[in-house]
Amino acid sequence: MMPNAKIYLAGPDVFWPNAREAGRAKVDLCKRYGCEGLFPLDTELELAGLPPYESGLAIFRANIGLMQRADLVIANMTPFRGPSMDVGTAFELGYMTARGKPVWGYTLDGRLYADRIAADGADTDADGLTIERFDMADNLMMVGAIEDSGGALLTEAAEHSLDTHLSLFEKVLRLIMRRVE
Amino acid sequence: MMPNAKIYLAGPDVFWPNAREAGRAKVDLCKRYGCEGLFPLDTELELAGLPPYESGLAIFRANIGLMQRADLVIANMTPFRGPSMDVGTAFELGYMTARGKPVWGYTLDGRLYADRIAADGADTDADGLTIERFDMADNLMMVGAIEDSGGALLTEAAEHSLDTHLSLFEKVLRLIMRRVE
Repeated sequence: MMPNAKIYLAGPDVFWPNAREAGRAKVDLCKRYGCEGLFPLDTELELAGLPPYESGLAIFRANIGLMQRADLVIANMTPFRGPSMDVGTAFELGYMTARGKPVWGYTLDGRLYADRIAADGADTDADGLTIERFDMADNLMMVGAIEDSGGALLTEAAEHSLDTHLSLFEKVLRLIMRRVE
Repeated sequence: MMPNAKIYLAGPDVFWPNAREAGRAKVDLCKRYGCEGLFPLDTELELAGLPPYESGLAIFRANIGLMQRADLVIANMTPFRGPSMDVGTAFELGYMTARGKPVWGYTLDGRLYADRIAADGADTDADGLTIERFDMADNLMMVGAIEDSGGALLTEAAEHSLDTHLSLFEKVLRLIMRRVE
């Protein structure tokens, strides 16, 4: 890895009650491995006085700016409000993929995506929608992007806590270091 | 719009029991407006004999190829297996955004994203996670991408059926035509 590689820290961590603490901890870990972590909450935007919709746009533009500066992305792909990862994070993985940046990820849910929807091996869900069984931890667009960009998706079944997130996140960092030596 | 513009038809429509019929109908509508619709199911991949994971990768690569050919994207952003849109579609909107292609979308759920999670105006969900209230129909990355690319997100509260989807999809097509005249 290039020295001081800039890593975009994607994930729904920004919605946690302890989002600032989580962001700081991930940024600190990046620093320990000689990298610069870019956490979306760090952008210190001037949102005061903006109507809600305009605030959302300002955050979108700030996140795009951070991604343009980043050399790679590490995404928290743990399921969020459903069987899949956060959609904002999914958008960001697509964005980085199109820019040819390596995509790495981790999830604290040890199951395959299909088993999260139907553990009994069914081919359709309760609404009659197809459940694709590709032995993948989430939708094939994400897993394909990780695979073809030379990244990896680390999986570990664990309770959600800042500690378990940071522990698995650090394993991703170590793997990145090993891959590029 | 340029003649014969190629439109990537993103959405979880590929998981519907009548996916082929839906894809054909959307492609036909595109043709009626002088465009070429690219529906991910049309790729006619040779997947026979491939293990599941390899099949998923092949579909990922085919979808990337279709997006590279496309001039713009129209996404079905109706919520899928949760309060948000399909994550594969979200990835694709990020991909097209990074390539500077206009992003258009529609949803058959008339509510704001935040109201889908907590109609009472709460700022956190049952897990204590922040609910951002940006007056947006889904995550700000998607809505920001649509806004800044010059597209639009059409919303119409309606029952899910092929007819309601096609009706709103056609309104997007008409709006695209009007914008570029």
